Amino acid sequence: MTHSHTAPPAVAEQTRREEELVERVLRSFDDCADPRLKELMQALVRYLHGFLRDVRLTEEEWQKGIEFLTQVGHITDDKRQEFILLSDTLGASMQTIAINNEAHGAATEATVFGPFFVDGAPRIELGGDVAGGAAGEPCWVEGTVRDTDGRPVPGARLEVWEADEEGYYDVQYDDDRTAGRAHLFSGPDGEYRFWAVTPTPYPIPHDGPVGRMLDAVGRSPLRAAHLHFMVTAEGCRTLVTHIFVRGDELLETDTVFGVKESLVKAFERQPAGTPTPDDRAVDGTWSKVRFDIVLAPAGN
Amino acid sequence: MTHSHTAPPAVAEQTRREEELVERVLRSFDDCADPRLKELMQALVRYLHGFLRDVRLTEEEWQKGIEFLTQVGHITDDKRQEFILLSDTLGASMQTIAINNEAHGAATEATVFGPFFVDGAPRIELGGDVAGGAAGEPCWVEGTVRDTDGRPVPGARLEVWEADEEGYYDVQYDDDRTAGRAHLFSGPDGEYRFWAVTPTPYPIPHDGPVGRMLDAVGRSPLRAAHLHFMVTAEGCRTLVTHIFVRGDELLETDTVFGVKESLVKAFERQPAGTPTPDDRAVDGTWSKVRFDIVLAPAGN
Repeated sequence: MTHSHTAPPAVAEQTRREEELVERVLRSFDDCADPRLKELMQALVRYLHGFLRDVRLTEEEWQKGIEFLTQVGHITDDKRQEFILLSDTLGASMQTIAINNEAHGAATEATVFGPFFVDGAPRIELGGDVAGGAAGEPCWVEGTVRDTDGRPVPGARLEVWEADEEGYYDVQYDDDRTAGRAHLFSGPDGEYRFWAVTPTPYPIPHDGPVGRMLDAVGRSPLRAAHLHFMVTAEGCRTLVTHIFVRGDELLETDTVFGVKESLVKAFERQPAGTPTPDDRAVDGTWSKVRFDIVLAPAGN
Repeated sequence: MTHSHTAPPAVAEQTRREEELVERVLRSFDDCADPRLKELMQALVRYLHGFLRDVRLTEEEWQKGIEFLTQVGHITDDKRQEFILLSDTLGASMQTIAINNEAHGAATEATVFGPFFVDGAPRIELGGDVAGGAAGEPCWVEGTVRDTDGRPVPGARLEVWEADEEGYYDVQYDDDRTAGRAHLFSGPDGEYRFWAVTPTPYPIPHDGPVGRMLDAVGRSPLRAAHLHFMVTAEGCRTLVTHIFVRGDELLETDTVFGVKESLVKAFERQPAGTPTPDDRAVDGTWSKVRFDIVLAPAGN
């Protein structure tokens, strides 16, 4: 047996044993008939073993990891998806979105879809109200939908959804309400406008193992305040994104890492009595925000 | 904004977005008060994001991953630990053992503990029978326990356990039997000897998501035949290992990667009628194997 010049024999032997094991595990996937599955599993093995060897995981830590995953599995049911929360809080969901929405010129950036979208939300006209009774300060939202060549996109479908001022989505109440969600279509020049409520921060569900993890590492379960958009138009890549509130102190620490600087917008608070763009009668303050949307071409 | 000489602007911007996200997730653990937990979480993030970016995970693949982990969580209960099976079949359990049992001279190598050890197995004398009624071909096992300086270790405690010829451990039967497990102590010169049954291969539980994963990638759920040992002695590192059967065609593909060449032993089959070392009356064939054990010093 030969040894390297620097490593003492026991260290060289230890390294050999660990590397030989990685190779053996990799080979076990050699006969996988699906080339993409083979690629995924072999890469998973390389990164997983890289992690174990890098941190020199102890057997007690391995045991704690197994117990943690078991708890994540046991709290997960049809209504609570703790594995998605785990992926979100490790930034894995946001990284997957980044990978699958490759930068394309000036196209608006994507962010996490989140668990609160509902198919079949009511349609509103341009200038209509998304709130549908959701409590909160009124917020006027306007902008245009364009493609990356700057051409207006008329008839783009905008799905919009958000939490109320208590930080809850309609589906988190027990009374089957529909509020804080709607869809509308952009006008002939790609323009759109609607009323909503000014977004407020709220925590992800944090009474389970992921919440305990956040607590153990000193992280907050709060998401930065945001308003969800999903924009679809023929010939364009579907955009799933939010806009965030400039000045929100949670922008840096959004617990699912959804914030992109380009998605942070000025929500300008208007004093009570300020006339609204559509002469709506508003008691008290309201806010307004502009969000110009640029869609990448389909297939990108 | 500056771009590299080789990457077009969109590629450089894409790389910047992905790397910036990794940095942001890493920073979220900066305030973790426990330095080891911080190290583990930040390394986990680096390797997890490295995997996602390397394979360019699609959103559909991410979804399948979430569903797979959810199934692993839901089949896991007090008696079935599918996360351990997953760790085992990805070689992560064996790598953790390798890391925590660093090579030390001629010390016997460790392997996986497995789920079938039971505390409080009966004591047998030197030359006694571990089988305790377990069905199988009788197997004479003998050897010595020594330290890495070659000194005999008298009074070492040897826990031994194994499956019967059907491939089942006693605890897998519904009748509370105790069979195929016992403990004994090495003699004054470190010597030990006992009867057991010749080990046979058996599958890990493969009716769940891990079994389906093995099936999808073309791997067998079978473990190579083996006999478990746990050896403890004062002043020595506890050894958890198995011995395997030379010639077993499953040595290369043992589905939990437990096989080490140094642990593969000749189980010599004896024709019916061959006298045994202790003049036991045996009907039919029997086998014999020698396993000389070397314990590392404690604290290594």
